[in-house]
Amino acid sequence: MENPFTDEYFMKKALQEAEVAFEQGEIPVGAIIVVKNKVIARTHNLTELLKDVTAHAEMQAITSAANFLGGKYLKGCTLYVTLEPCQMCAGALYWSQISKIVFGARDEQRGFMTMGTKLHPKTEVVSGILAQEASDLMLRFFASKRK
Amino acid sequence: MENPFTDEYFMKKALQEAEVAFEQGEIPVGAIIVVKNKVIARTHNLTELLKDVTAHAEMQAITSAANFLGGKYLKGCTLYVTLEPCQMCAGALYWSQISKIVFGARDEQRGFMTMGTKLHPKTEVVSGILAQEASDLMLRFFASKRK
Repeated sequence: MENPFTDEYFMKKALQEAEVAFEQGEIPVGAIIVVKNKVIARTHNLTELLKDVTAHAEMQAITSAANFLGGKYLKGCTLYVTLEPCQMCAGALYWSQISKIVFGARDEQRGFMTMGTKLHPKTEVVSGILAQEASDLMLRFFASKRK
Repeated sequence: MENPFTDEYFMKKALQEAEVAFEQGEIPVGAIIVVKNKVIARTHNLTELLKDVTAHAEMQAITSAANFLGGKYLKGCTLYVTLEPCQMCAGALYWSQISKIVFGARDEQRGFMTMGTKLHPKTEVVSGILAQEASDLMLRFFASKRK
């Protein structure tokens, strides 16, 4: 039997979180953290609700996962996030020593790859998973804001 | 009469916060945020207590100041922090559009200047204020940990 727990499988869950953000008028980014195929954190962007620039989906996922694990390092964990992390989030992921980051759409302007933010040397990165879906959601969001 | 509200004046308050962190077994970094000579946030590193890599002094100061101001942008504010901010904190400061950052000691290894993290183009940076005091506190901390 095929392994059902693919990167797409978990990215769909991150996208569901992004949709919740969308419905709440937040920039639609969702994130989950998985360890041994178990989801231990499920978050979305809350910068508008909390009026706090640090409330990105990834930051909350890191805090939430560390809280679940009872330790601050996320070795053995995988983050699924619908959009390429920014400098702040990549910087937090650096400190967390997370094992793997899977992101959907590129953020050509402010993503960590463009900005040159360093991740932990042991962190593996996979990109482009359900990128079109994540990107479409962002475009729909900004189109609705322009109306 | 001379203006008593110098960068040294406020950095002393950040150092007091760093000392509280030291006493609690946290890496001794303290931060305050000031607007019109009024301290609106006063924080120190809490990564050990909260078991959370995102709990740097600056991150908490940003959240605390935004909460006080009722808005997420920190235009008109100055951050005083005893150690050069890391990638994560500089990334958060970028989003906050803070007007001025004053830091004490350089972090040659993991500071944002070494790492190349971008700040907001309108953010002014001053460094080296009470750097020796901040650096001495860090050295004392790591010496005590080695015992």
